[in-house]
Amino acid sequence: MNIQLLLTGNELMSGDVIDSNSAMIAQSLKDHGIEVSRKVTVSDDLQPLVNELIQMSQSADVLIVNGGLGPTVDDLTAQALAQAANSPLVYHDQALAHLATWCAKRGFQLNEANKKQAYLPQACDIIANPIGSAVGFKLDLNQCQIYCTPGVPVELKAMLNQQILPELIKQQPVLVHMHVTRWQVFGIGESTLQQMIGEQFPDWPDSIELGFRASMPLLELKLTSRSQVAFVEKQAWQQKLKAMLGEHIIGENNCSMAKTVVQLLAEQHKHFSVAESCTGGLIASQITSVAGSSKVFEAGIVSYSNQMKNKLLNVDQQLLAAHGAVSEQTAIAMLKGSLAISGADLALAVTGIAGPDGGSTQKPVGMVWLAWGNAEFIQTCCLYLPGQRYYFQHYVAAIGLDLIRRILINSQTAPLYLSQREFTPTNLEPAP
Amino acid sequence: MNIQLLLTGNELMSGDVIDSNSAMIAQSLKDHGIEVSRKVTVSDDLQPLVNELIQMSQSADVLIVNGGLGPTVDDLTAQALAQAANSPLVYHDQALAHLATWCAKRGFQLNEANKKQAYLPQACDIIANPIGSAVGFKLDLNQCQIYCTPGVPVELKAMLNQQILPELIKQQPVLVHMHVTRWQVFGIGESTLQQMIGEQFPDWPDSIELGFRASMPLLELKLTSRSQVAFVEKQAWQQKLKAMLGEHIIGENNCSMAKTVVQLLAEQHKHFSVAESCTGGLIASQITSVAGSSKVFEAGIVSYSNQMKNKLLNVDQQLLAAHGAVSEQTAIAMLKGSLAISGADLALAVTGIAGPDGGSTQKPVGMVWLAWGNAEFIQTCCLYLPGQRYYFQHYVAAIGLDLIRRILINSQTAPLYLSQREFTPTNLEPAP
Repeated sequence: MNIQLLLTGNELMSGDVIDSNSAMIAQSLKDHGIEVSRKVTVSDDLQPLVNELIQMSQSADVLIVNGGLGPTVDDLTAQALAQAANSPLVYHDQALAHLATWCAKRGFQLNEANKKQAYLPQACDIIANPIGSAVGFKLDLNQCQIYCTPGVPVELKAMLNQQILPELIKQQPVLVHMHVTRWQVFGIGESTLQQMIGEQFPDWPDSIELGFRASMPLLELKLTSRSQVAFVEKQAWQQKLKAMLGEHIIGENNCSMAKTVVQLLAEQHKHFSVAESCTGGLIASQITSVAGSSKVFEAGIVSYSNQMKNKLLNVDQQLLAAHGAVSEQTAIAMLKGSLAISGADLALAVTGIAGPDGGSTQKPVGMVWLAWGNAEFIQTCCLYLPGQRYYFQHYVAAIGLDLIRRILINSQTAPLYLSQREFTPTNLEPAP
Repeated sequence: MNIQLLLTGNELMSGDVIDSNSAMIAQSLKDHGIEVSRKVTVSDDLQPLVNELIQMSQSADVLIVNGGLGPTVDDLTAQALAQAANSPLVYHDQALAHLATWCAKRGFQLNEANKKQAYLPQACDIIANPIGSAVGFKLDLNQCQIYCTPGVPVELKAMLNQQILPELIKQQPVLVHMHVTRWQVFGIGESTLQQMIGEQFPDWPDSIELGFRASMPLLELKLTSRSQVAFVEKQAWQQKLKAMLGEHIIGENNCSMAKTVVQLLAEQHKHFSVAESCTGGLIASQITSVAGSSKVFEAGIVSYSNQMKNKLLNVDQQLLAAHGAVSEQTAIAMLKGSLAISGADLALAVTGIAGPDGGSTQKPVGMVWLAWGNAEFIQTCCLYLPGQRYYFQHYVAAIGLDLIRRILINSQTAPLYLSQREFTPTNLEPAP
């Protein structure tokens, strides 16, 4: 079944409004194994709308039109469909009755502008709107079922669930056994991952679709099967892939790094604290964005200046003078200060140069020292993550939390970024 | 000039990702008087992509393709364009050199998957990507200029501004006298603002288009003129509107609350510090996301537990026991602690209940105490901002920074939210 979407609205074309309705339609259909193949967006102009309706009806089995059902002059869906299907606009009794009830319930007078919402192509069937004033309508053109739906998300959703989806599901010749697994992965780039899969699983079956989505700093990996046979096959291949990815898997189904860390801390009844310089509170903020983080998070200290590193974290001033704020010694001292003050079981300290200013030949923008662990065992690393301030800060935060996560899962492997992103004089560009 | 967009990506079709790139492209073009007429979205499937490229090139003068430039097998834009334009895929030296530099800078080996990003239609010209690994490319097909751009928003934006927009503007047959003013506004809702303008300026001229865009927590107000005459007229009306909005205007042209505050602090050579409980580092993080904030930001203390409020900010334990963590007394004590430790000229302290748990009848989720000022003059307020944790935290951060901004601009008016969002027992729902 070829399903397409046609979205109308000047505000969608101009970018004043970001379209989320089409994502909602696609997700609702997908939950029932139905996929949307194509999506077109046009302005509120009559002739382009008519043309698009005709063209799309020639290639689609089902066309869901969204928007343009309102009472104002720029709402043109009914008029365009009337013209495309050569079916004159008439007042539909069922729609008029709905409007009358809707207005009466709210103490409004039914005015001419409202009545326009009942002036629809003669050949169409009405789709009830249990929430708003605009009824939907349905009409067949070129053997394509065209459903016209309102732009208000909650009204669209009700119409989808109550009428459109049940109709579509009934028409599906075969029940689709679709199953999706989503993993959030950190520390392997999209291209490296693709290559690893290609090399280690050259016989990966076509029936298990692989999808990748980079959403900085995590990468989402999606495995889709579309039949019962493929679903069984997927279970086995999924295990192999899981073994390959190992500790790079952060979680599944919209997990975030902070959520995983908070969950692990809570399970292990451990408390965490953080001392931040270059990330400026981002790590604390990510942790505390998770509901329930107060059970595991003690304190975050953003010591932006040397003086504050001394005053808040007890970093020795002579040490700062001797080694500088961005140094292994300072990172360790910040970590020890954080642990001592908070009494946390685990802590993380970061100090680096976020840029765009403040870099030098020896300590360039993008250089960062991390220290993590507890009073008994402290680890450190120095990484080089050049790029914009925003990416630097978010990448450092993700790596810092990943290092904490790896302690909590008792990781036995070293993450790739520790070697690949290690700061060494050789990956510095020559000074100008 | 007929401009169309073609967006590719399974994640866009499935609704897993909401497309915001097309809105960004449309907005960027619109600022220069260029409008997008049609937008099509398709999955990562070769043949439909080829068909769409051919069809769209027949009706558009310019086609901007977004997405599908990555290194993985589901990135098909180059292959599809090669097929559509009958131009074989070859390795482009300029693109290979870019990839080699990009990898070297990060200490990576250039692998086969990455090299795919240089394997492009022979006939195309390269568009530089100043940020990421994927270069863009350009090719003419059926007298349509096809620009292929990366899906990563920041890379797309750079490519648009640095190459595509300047090229399009040059081609405009008539110089369009379009002028756009954008203001970021805080503390007035969209409908209130619309009503205020309607009431105070009933004779607002049609030639000055008003646009609103809510982007939590700020509201963007856009004034557009499309002729020289309208531009002159706009200057006068803009002044009237500015007078009406007064201190609700935060800044112009993509300003953020934190950027404005950092700029004001820098101009006045003042230092700032923050003590956060319920916002958990978000305020510090927003301040330090601004380049150059190290000149004005001393320290942020995230004291999540009572113990940490005592230890880090010297909040008296008896005071905490008597009034609780969410109280005026605690907010003031946190503020005083923050000022004393950091030596900052100005500070802000927030303590509240972000939820979803931790609320009570007396102190419900959404209640927050703010204290701000300096050692000589401390102000406080208690607000009620019920809603999801994310919105609560971001709204509190914005209000906190706005209160600091108002001190820095020597504000003479009280912002509306202090009265509208004030916490009083009457705006509490009755206990169940």
